[in-house]
Amino acid sequence: MGAHADTRSDGRAGVRAPAPAGVCPVLLTPFRPDGEVDEDGFVRVVDHLLAVGARSVMFPGFASEVLALSDDEREHLSMVLLERTARREDVTAVVSVPDYATHHAVRRAARLVEAGADAINVLPPHQLAPPVESVLAHLEQLLTAVHPVPVVLQHAPLQTGTALTVPTIRALAERHRNLAAVKVESQPPGRTISALLDSETPIPSIIGHAGQQLPDALDRGAIGVQPGCSFTELYLRVWHQWEAGEPAAARRLHTRMLPYLSSWMQDVNVIVGAEKIVAMRRGLIGSDHCRAPVRELDDGERASVDAFLDEFGAELPEVGP
Amino acid sequence: MGAHADTRSDGRAGVRAPAPAGVCPVLLTPFRPDGEVDEDGFVRVVDHLLAVGARSVMFPGFASEVLALSDDEREHLSMVLLERTARREDVTAVVSVPDYATHHAVRRAARLVEAGADAINVLPPHQLAPPVESVLAHLEQLLTAVHPVPVVLQHAPLQTGTALTVPTIRALAERHRNLAAVKVESQPPGRTISALLDSETPIPSIIGHAGQQLPDALDRGAIGVQPGCSFTELYLRVWHQWEAGEPAAARRLHTRMLPYLSSWMQDVNVIVGAEKIVAMRRGLIGSDHCRAPVRELDDGERASVDAFLDEFGAELPEVGP
Amino acid sequence: MGAHADTRSDGRAGVRAPAPAGVCPVLLTPFRPDGEVDEDGFVRVVDHLLAVGARSVMFPGFASEVLALSDDEREHLSMVLLERTARREDVTAVVSVPDYATHHAVRRAARLVEAGADAINVLPPHQLAPPVESVLAHLEQLLTAVHPVPVVLQHAPLQTGTALTVPTIRALAERHRNLAAVKVESQPPGRTISALLDSETPIPSIIGHAGQQLPDALDRGAIGVQPGCSFTELYLRVWHQWEAGEPAAARRLHTRMLPYLSSWMQDVNVIVGAEKIVAMRRGLIGSDHCRAPVRELDDGERASVDAFLDEFGAELPEVGP
Amino acid sequence: MGAHADTRSDGRAGVRAPAPAGVCPVLLTPFRPDGEVDEDGFVRVVDHLLAVGARSVMFPGFASEVLALSDDEREHLSMVLLERTARREDVTAVVSVPDYATHHAVRRAARLVEAGADAINVLPPHQLAPPVESVLAHLEQLLTAVHPVPVVLQHAPLQTGTALTVPTIRALAERHRNLAAVKVESQPPGRTISALLDSETPIPSIIGHAGQQLPDALDRGAIGVQPGCSFTELYLRVWHQWEAGEPAAARRLHTRMLPYLSSWMQDVNVIVGAEKIVAMRRGLIGSDHCRAPVRELDDGERASVDAFLDEFGAELPEVGP
Repeated sequence: MGAHADTRSDGRAGVRAPAPAGVCPVLLTPFRPDGEVDEDGFVRVVDHLLAVGARSVMFPGFASEVLALSDDEREHLSMVLLERTARREDVTAVVSVPDYATHHAVRRAARLVEAGADAINVLPPHQLAPPVESVLAHLEQLLTAVHPVPVVLQHAPLQTGTALTVPTIRALAERHRNLAAVKVESQPPGRTISALLDSETPIPSIIGHAGQQLPDALDRGAIGVQPGCSFTELYLRVWHQWEAGEPAAARRLHTRMLPYLSSWMQDVNVIVGAEKIVAMRRGLIGSDHCRAPVRELDDGERASVDAFLDEFGAELPEVGP
Repeated sequence: MGAHADTRSDGRAGVRAPAPAGVCPVLLTPFRPDGEVDEDGFVRVVDHLLAVGARSVMFPGFASEVLALSDDEREHLSMVLLERTARREDVTAVVSVPDYATHHAVRRAARLVEAGADAINVLPPHQLAPPVESVLAHLEQLLTAVHPVPVVLQHAPLQTGTALTVPTIRALAERHRNLAAVKVESQPPGRTISALLDSETPIPSIIGHAGQQLPDALDRGAIGVQPGCSFTELYLRVWHQWEAGEPAAARRLHTRMLPYLSSWMQDVNVIVGAEKIVAMRRGLIGSDHCRAPVRELDDGERASVDAFLDEFGAELPEVGP
Repeated sequence: MGAHADTRSDGRAGVRAPAPAGVCPVLLTPFRPDGEVDEDGFVRVVDHLLAVGARSVMFPGFASEVLALSDDEREHLSMVLLERTARREDVTAVVSVPDYATHHAVRRAARLVEAGADAINVLPPHQLAPPVESVLAHLEQLLTAVHPVPVVLQHAPLQTGTALTVPTIRALAERHRNLAAVKVESQPPGRTISALLDSETPIPSIIGHAGQQLPDALDRGAIGVQPGCSFTELYLRVWHQWEAGEPAAARRLHTRMLPYLSSWMQDVNVIVGAEKIVAMRRGLIGSDHCRAPVRELDDGERASVDAFLDEFGAELPEVGP
Repeated sequence: MGAHADTRSDGRAGVRAPAPAGVCPVLLTPFRPDGEVDEDGFVRVVDHLLAVGARSVMFPGFASEVLALSDDEREHLSMVLLERTARREDVTAVVSVPDYATHHAVRRAARLVEAGADAINVLPPHQLAPPVESVLAHLEQLLTAVHPVPVVLQHAPLQTGTALTVPTIRALAERHRNLAAVKVESQPPGRTISALLDSETPIPSIIGHAGQQLPDALDRGAIGVQPGCSFTELYLRVWHQWEAGEPAAARRLHTRMLPYLSSWMQDVNVIVGAEKIVAMRRGLIGSDHCRAPVRELDDGERASVDAFLDEFGAELPEVGP
């Protein structure tokens, strides 16, 4: 989108800003075989996702190999994304701010909103285990800086060891109406989704982790899912079936995906590598290169990608150049 | 079994002791509502498992709430198990030794073998991060003490942070022919299973974690699986289909189980609680009490147990008193 | 002591039970060279500590190699301690309850109080990261079961990852007057000591970690210290100097000890090993055996024990048989 | 220095490149009260350190608040440092490369060497626990790219969870003569220092952690120490006394520092905050601002900085503008 006109009018006291709902794929970062960013491939991925029906996209997350990107690379690709979505009023571009220093996180978030970000995702600082007060101050300053643009708080205690608890998040949401949603990546996510809704200030959830627990999340009221981006068509179909009142069909398709998701999601490196192979086979990107340090897929893991494409290939057509 | 006659004859140099193969359920510990051990229930569970076709059982593991048992309770229940399997030449009783002190672990293992244990499972000491040399010494003394009885090494780096690597395990296996198998609970387990086999001293693997990755494990040569014990019939059917040369059928059944396994296995407390509800509903045990401290199942998690029983109830008949 | 008469009269609403104050050494567990418990040595250590002026002792802690003791061994040695202190009205015997299961922790605590324990130390369950609600329930049941006997809550987040925060502890202390003190082993402990006192329900602290931060702890109002037990005379002198209004002298002695404490406390295995060598050289115990798995002291670490005895030997006389 | 002429001639097979020896302070990053980098202050700190006799300096480390710096800020300040040391043939400028992606780490290291870095410090990638093979590949590519410039490998397993062991480091050093030293920040460091030297390919160590274990490290053969930078004069005096054959005097001074070091080093935030106050009081920097998220010093911690300056003020003169 880019204009925020509607969003801003929703920012008034008492009405929570709208969060990115539905299937919101996390963009991969394509690299050339020499390790340089393939910007054309990135644009092709964005365009493909919008073409198949995604109405929100997120960048950069762990699925984007965010740790392997320089500050400049992630800022530049974020801007490329925002240019691409600027004229699409129907598309929500969510840009993530994983910066450690509050100083930088607040400035980057403001810059991204200025450039047209429709929502900001924030990964709380976690290295060196900062005290919860300082993590809260980080979040509050960022929420204030981008108000009334909606903010998604990424809650991934296993990866980040963050000290944020449900009561703490609830108190934060009471003070900041633009805390629009929590991306729940705790294990298991279900009870956190329920606990966040069970409040006088209910907070909607977005489910991560490749949507492995998507049916449970939907049962509990999640409003969105942020999987990878190389087989978005499948997630969209699950979502549409659920919305169309056909949960049994949605579950059936999800269960077919589960052997792959539950295997690949055991290791971030494996799911990123598997997604890149799928994207390359579909013609979305020219190379499945992942930036080191990385755990390369072994033969068995590569075989599981082949099996996935055998099973779902007909539903995941090749993308022309 | 209890006699070790066959096992001992296999213990000669150059031939690895036979590991417990196939489906080897980990026994739950039934508690009465007041928290006391329900020994009758324990016996009923053992008898049921043997009746439905399990040819090996393991006790105690995390699925047995081993952390909540006193030394006396786990020793006593181990002995109850061994009495029950003593006359069954066709059944392999695997007893686990999670003791921290090498002094106690070696003595307990010897005692259990004396009492008829067919194999010993060893959880390496991990609290306070002991140096790898002392962990190896622990394992070597135990292997020597019970020789030629086969030993299964439990490899659960996420829970235990153990410093054991594949090369370390391989070197240990070269010196100890009764290191019969590794119970692989790393994430993902697949590449570890392959790496352990890809050696001049190939080491067979047993897969844990509720058999969530069972098809991949079988593809890679795993010789056994150690799930919980309340729906063993399903695992046995998957196993028999695979052995009968019907891997597609095996995968289909496993995929049907996966929504439940992949959800419950996110938290040890949840899968233990879910298994106990299933066991109680089937009439195996009188109470689904878990000893605190524990994370109680919430409504959504209880609903998933109901859904599981709706789906598989016909295949998991009630057990008469 | 053993009678609790005085303690119980203090247990009335509104008055916090008295915590063990001053220097409270944690008893080591002497082993014979073959690894068996040396009960005579244990009694000799207790008697020595009382003879040199300790008025409270604690058992078992990490310094007692508690992980390496069986349930029976720690129960038996606890009872030996309580027999030894039974007739000493001036001595506070603190017995620790590290049991994981609430079921066992509550019963053991009650048994120890029955046998004459003057105070109970509780290490909250932490393996498998139980939810904070269940840890609180564990503590509450134990506090109730032993009321009005004072309880010391061990707060060692680095070792145990416990989710207990200062506000949580404060709320617990408001409901349980016999939550007498917190043994603070967070790093750094100082701000936790201050935060626990800065409340309408001030909670006194006892400092652990070999008293490495003792002067800061005293400045902030700590009421006790729980170091090891092989050079208690030095800690007693620091304490008495401080109480006598000679903090500069206390600091000087403490600073002389600091090169050794700050080195040894980097690794639990090292300080336990170093303390055992000191105790053996002083004639307190017959062997410095530590139960494996353990990190053995290397030459440089042994040299530092020699240097310590060179420096402080005159102040730490040999103990006759 | 900047020329590498001498260094390069040492890079021949069989001779290890010379590591930065002696006292090598880690530069702090001064911030203005508004959070912006104070470049003038940074230059003032560098000049001061060279003026008081430091012959090597390191930037950026945890003591530089490296996590709070953007890529551009740390690159720019590194270049400022290298300009300042370019004409000083007697000064070794060590620049650290903490980048996660091998792609960026190698390029940055080459750029820094081109700009005159005399040695490169590398912090191995550790987030998401990359496999040891990929960490080794990261190090090997960097070592090759900057050859024959010496490289210091930062070994901080507690902060970084790195899987590097002494045998692994030894094998790496055998293949790369410019692996000049290991910065040992394991706890305890002593046995690692000894183990790295006890080899046919002895590897020298530099001690970190504020030099808290400096005497032990020197006893074991460490060749350097990397403390903070606000009271470098004290470390230089310890070092010179030791080199002058007066270890007792060196120990005495170190022991006087120990109450402060052992307290502050419990928390990276505290020692960074304390060092900044000292630097500000001495007139080195205009503000003691640390970038959030950070744990602010409490009253007791501030009092300990006052006590430090009371004790050592005469030895740490104010620095004129």
